[in-house]
Amino acid sequence: MTNNLRAFLGFHELSTVHFYKALLCEFLGTGILIVSTCGSIVSMDAGRVVSTFSTAMTSGMTVAYIVWTFNHVSGAHINPVVTFAFMITGIVSLTKTVGYILSQCIGAVTGAAIIWYMLPPSWRGNLGSTVFHEDVTLAQGFFIEVISTFIMVLGVFATSDRYRTDHSGSLPLTIGLIVFMESAWAGKLTGCSMNPARSLGPAVLSGSWDHHWVYWLAPALGSSCGSLLYQHVLAESPQEANTSI
Amino acid sequence: MTNNLRAFLGFHELSTVHFYKALLCEFLGTGILIVSTCGSIVSMDAGRVVSTFSTAMTSGMTVAYIVWTFNHVSGAHINPVVTFAFMITGIVSLTKTVGYILSQCIGAVTGAAIIWYMLPPSWRGNLGSTVFHEDVTLAQGFFIEVISTFIMVLGVFATSDRYRTDHSGSLPLTIGLIVFMESAWAGKLTGCSMNPARSLGPAVLSGSWDHHWVYWLAPALGSSCGSLLYQHVLAESPQEANTSI
Amino acid sequence: MTNNLRAFLGFHELSTVHFYKALLCEFLGTGILIVSTCGSIVSMDAGRVVSTFSTAMTSGMTVAYIVWTFNHVSGAHINPVVTFAFMITGIVSLTKTVGYILSQCIGAVTGAAIIWYMLPPSWRGNLGSTVFHEDVTLAQGFFIEVISTFIMVLGVFATSDRYRTDHSGSLPLTIGLIVFMESAWAGKLTGCSMNPARSLGPAVLSGSWDHHWVYWLAPALGSSCGSLLYQHVLAESPQEANTSI
Amino acid sequence: MTNNLRAFLGFHELSTVHFYKALLCEFLGTGILIVSTCGSIVSMDAGRVVSTFSTAMTSGMTVAYIVWTFNHVSGAHINPVVTFAFMITGIVSLTKTVGYILSQCIGAVTGAAIIWYMLPPSWRGNLGSTVFHEDVTLAQGFFIEVISTFIMVLGVFATSDRYRTDHSGSLPLTIGLIVFMESAWAGKLTGCSMNPARSLGPAVLSGSWDHHWVYWLAPALGSSCGSLLYQHVLAESPQEANTSI
Repeated sequence: MTNNLRAFLGFHELSTVHFYKALLCEFLGTGILIVSTCGSIVSMDAGRVVSTFSTAMTSGMTVAYIVWTFNHVSGAHINPVVTFAFMITGIVSLTKTVGYILSQCIGAVTGAAIIWYMLPPSWRGNLGSTVFHEDVTLAQGFFIEVISTFIMVLGVFATSDRYRTDHSGSLPLTIGLIVFMESAWAGKLTGCSMNPARSLGPAVLSGSWDHHWVYWLAPALGSSCGSLLYQHVLAESPQEANTSI
Repeated sequence: MTNNLRAFLGFHELSTVHFYKALLCEFLGTGILIVSTCGSIVSMDAGRVVSTFSTAMTSGMTVAYIVWTFNHVSGAHINPVVTFAFMITGIVSLTKTVGYILSQCIGAVTGAAIIWYMLPPSWRGNLGSTVFHEDVTLAQGFFIEVISTFIMVLGVFATSDRYRTDHSGSLPLTIGLIVFMESAWAGKLTGCSMNPARSLGPAVLSGSWDHHWVYWLAPALGSSCGSLLYQHVLAESPQEANTSI
Repeated sequence: MTNNLRAFLGFHELSTVHFYKALLCEFLGTGILIVSTCGSIVSMDAGRVVSTFSTAMTSGMTVAYIVWTFNHVSGAHINPVVTFAFMITGIVSLTKTVGYILSQCIGAVTGAAIIWYMLPPSWRGNLGSTVFHEDVTLAQGFFIEVISTFIMVLGVFATSDRYRTDHSGSLPLTIGLIVFMESAWAGKLTGCSMNPARSLGPAVLSGSWDHHWVYWLAPALGSSCGSLLYQHVLAESPQEANTSI
Repeated sequence: MTNNLRAFLGFHELSTVHFYKALLCEFLGTGILIVSTCGSIVSMDAGRVVSTFSTAMTSGMTVAYIVWTFNHVSGAHINPVVTFAFMITGIVSLTKTVGYILSQCIGAVTGAAIIWYMLPPSWRGNLGSTVFHEDVTLAQGFFIEVISTFIMVLGVFATSDRYRTDHSGSLPLTIGLIVFMESAWAGKLTGCSMNPARSLGPAVLSGSWDHHWVYWLAPALGSSCGSLLYQHVLAESPQEANTSI
C-alpha cells in the first residue's frame, strides 16, 4: 500500500484521541446549528412566519459561533458536503470523512429532537425543515441548491487558503455572513440548505421528506465544482505568495 | 494554609486598587447592559412589542460594547454565572467571585432604576423583565435556559482560550454575536436571560418575579457544564499549541 | 508663556497643511454623517416612518465608514462634544477644538442642504431632525442624552487607549456598533443625538428647533463625565501595560 | 514608446495567465453580485416588496463575500467605475481596464440570466433593476448616484491606501458595510446602483432601461471625484507614514 493511499484512507487516525474529540465537536456543532437555525425559524416570532432576513442572519451567526468555538479541534465543517469537498481536494482522509458525516447526521437529529422537546407543541410545525416554495419547480430548486452551495464553498476554500496573506478580520464571522447572504436570496425558494445534515435533522423528527434527495445531491454537486475550481484555478500558489513578500 | 487554597480564596486581592476598579467596571457594565437591553425592549418601538430580532441584536451589541470597554480592568463578566464558571475552573478567586456578583447585582438594579426613571410611565410595562412565554412549560423553560447558557459559555471559554492561535477578528464582537444568535431563537420562549443579574434588575423594579429562581439555577447549571467541558476536553493544550508551530 | 500653555493653545498648528486637511475631513465626515443618517430616516421607507432598528444600524455603519475613511487625517471626531472631550483631557489643542467644531457645524448644515435638495419635497418632513417623543419630559430627555453620550464617550476613549493591548477587530466598526446600540434604545425617546452638529444640520434647514439647547448641553455634560472617568480611572497605565508584557 | 506609456497601456499583461484568471474572477464576482443582490430584491419576501434595509444588508454582505473570495486574483472590482477610478489614478493599466469592464458586463448579464431562470415566472418583475422612485426627478437621481458613488469610492481608496497603518478589522467586511450604509439611504430613491454593471445585467434581461445612461455617467463622475480627491489630498504620504513610526 502506497503512502498516498495510506494517507487518503487515514486508518491511523482512529487510534488518536484527537479524532474522537473532533467527532464530538462535529456532533456538538451540527446539533447547535439545528437548535439555533431551526429554533429561530419556528420560535422567533412565536410560531408565526418569521422574516427571511431574520432567520438568514441567525443562521449565519450560528455558523460563525460554531467555527469560532470548534474550529481548532475539528475544523468545524458541520456539513457533509464541506467534508466531502475537503476529501476530494485531498485535505481530509476517507476515515475522517466517514466519521465526520456520521457525527454530523447524528448531531443534526439530536439537535432536532432538542428543538422538538423545547418548543410548545402548537409551534412545532415542520421544525424548520427545508422545503421548496410551492412556486419553485424541481429543476429550479435543484439548480438553486447547486449554485448556492457552489458560492458558499468557494468562500470556505478562500478562507482556508493558507497561502493568502490578504485576508483580514474574522474568518468565522466571514463564513457566517456568507451563509446569511445566501439565505437572504435563496431562503424563500428552497430554504437555502446547502447542507444535507441541516435538512436531515428536522426531516427525521417532523417527517417532512419532500425533495429530500435534492438536499444531498445538489449541495454535493455544487461543493464539488466550487472546491475543485478554487483549489485548481483560484488558489494562491506558494510561489506567488513568496514573490509578493 | 496551602498556596493553592490561598490563591483560591484570594483575600490578598482586597488590598489592591485594581480590585475596586474591577468592581466599578462590573457595576458599570451590568448597569449599561440593563439600560440598553431592557431599554430597547421597552422603547425601540415606542412602547409596543418590538421584534425579537431587533432586541436580540441590541443585546448582543451591548455585550460587545461592554467587553470592548471594560475587559482590560475586570474581564467584563457582567454575569454571575460567567464569574462562577471562571471560579470553578480555577481562573478567578472566591473573593473576586463574591465581589463581582455583588457588583453585578447592584449594577443591574441601578440600571433598571435608570430605565424606570427615563421611560414615560405608560411605556414601562415590566421593564423588559425576562418571562416565560405562556405556552412554555416550567421544564421546557428550565431546559432552554440551561442549553442557551451552555452554548454561550462554550463560546466565552473558546474566546478566553489563550493557547488558541486560530482566532481572528474581534473577540468582543464575537461574544456579542453569540448573545444575538441565542436570543434570536430563545428570546421569545424565556427571554433568553442566561444571566441572573440581567433577570434580577428589572424584576426588582417592576415586581415581575415569575420563575425567577429558574434564571439563577438553570444558567448556573448550563455554565458549569459548558465551562468544564471546554476546559477539560476542548481546550487547546499548551503542548499541541507548541507542536503546531 | 509656558510650553504647556503653548501646546494647549496650539496656534502653531495653524501654519501646517495637515491642519487644513483635518478641517476638510471633519467637514466631509460630518456632511456625510448627516446625508446618510438623516437621509435614511426620511427615505428608507419612502417617506413613511422607518423602524428605529434600521436607522440605528445605518447611523452606526455611517460612523464606522467615516472613522475608517478619515481617521488618519483628523481622527474623525465629527462631533463637537467628542472634540471637546479630547480637549479637556489634554489630547487636542484649543485651536484644533475651535477649528474642528466650526468645520463640523458647517459640514452638518451642508449635509442637510444636500439631503434637502435630493429628497422629493413631499418626503422632507423635518429632514430627520432629533426630536423628543411627545411622551418624554424635558428632564427625561436631558438625562437620556447625558447617559447615552456618557456611554458612547467611554467607548470612544476605550478605543483610543493606546496602552491597551487587548483590543482586537475593527476599531471603526466597534464605534459604529456602539452608535447603533445606543440609538436602538434611545432613538425613539430623543433621537439619540449625542452630537450637537448632528442636531444642528437638519434644524437649520427644517426650522425644527425644539429643545435644541438640550442637544448641546446634555452631550457636553455626558462626554465630560465619560472622558474624565475613562482617562483618570479606567485607562490602562503605561506601567501596567509594561508589566503585563 | 516611453516606459510610462507602456505601463499605462499594459499590453504585456495579455500574455500572462494571471490576466485571464483575473478576468474569470471579475466575471464570477459580478455574476454572483447580480444573483445575490437582485435575487434578494425579488425573492426575499416571495415576490412582494422587500424592505430596503434587508436588501441593503444583503447587497453589502455580497460585496464583502466577493472581495473576500476573489481579491487576491483580480482585486475584486466588480464595478466598471471602480476599475475606471483605478485607471485614472494610475493603478491599473488600460488593457486591464478594458478587460475588466467587459468581464464585469458579461458577468452581470449572465448573473441576471441565472436569476431569471431560477425565479418562478410570477416573481420576476424587473429582476431587481435599478429604477428611480416616481417622486425623484432626473436631476435629483443623477445627483444621488454621483454623491453615493463619490462616498463609496472614497471608502474603497481609503481601504486600498497601503501607507495607512491605522486600519484594523476586515477590509472586505468594511467595503460591504459601506455598500449597505449607502443603499440604506439611497436605495429607495434610485436603487443606489453606484455600478453600471449592476444596472446593466437585469436591464438586459427585463428590458427595464429607464434612465439607464444615468447609471453609467453619474457613477463615473462620482468615482472620478472621489478617487482623485483621495489620492491627491487625503492619501497617507509615505513620508508621514515613516515619521509616525
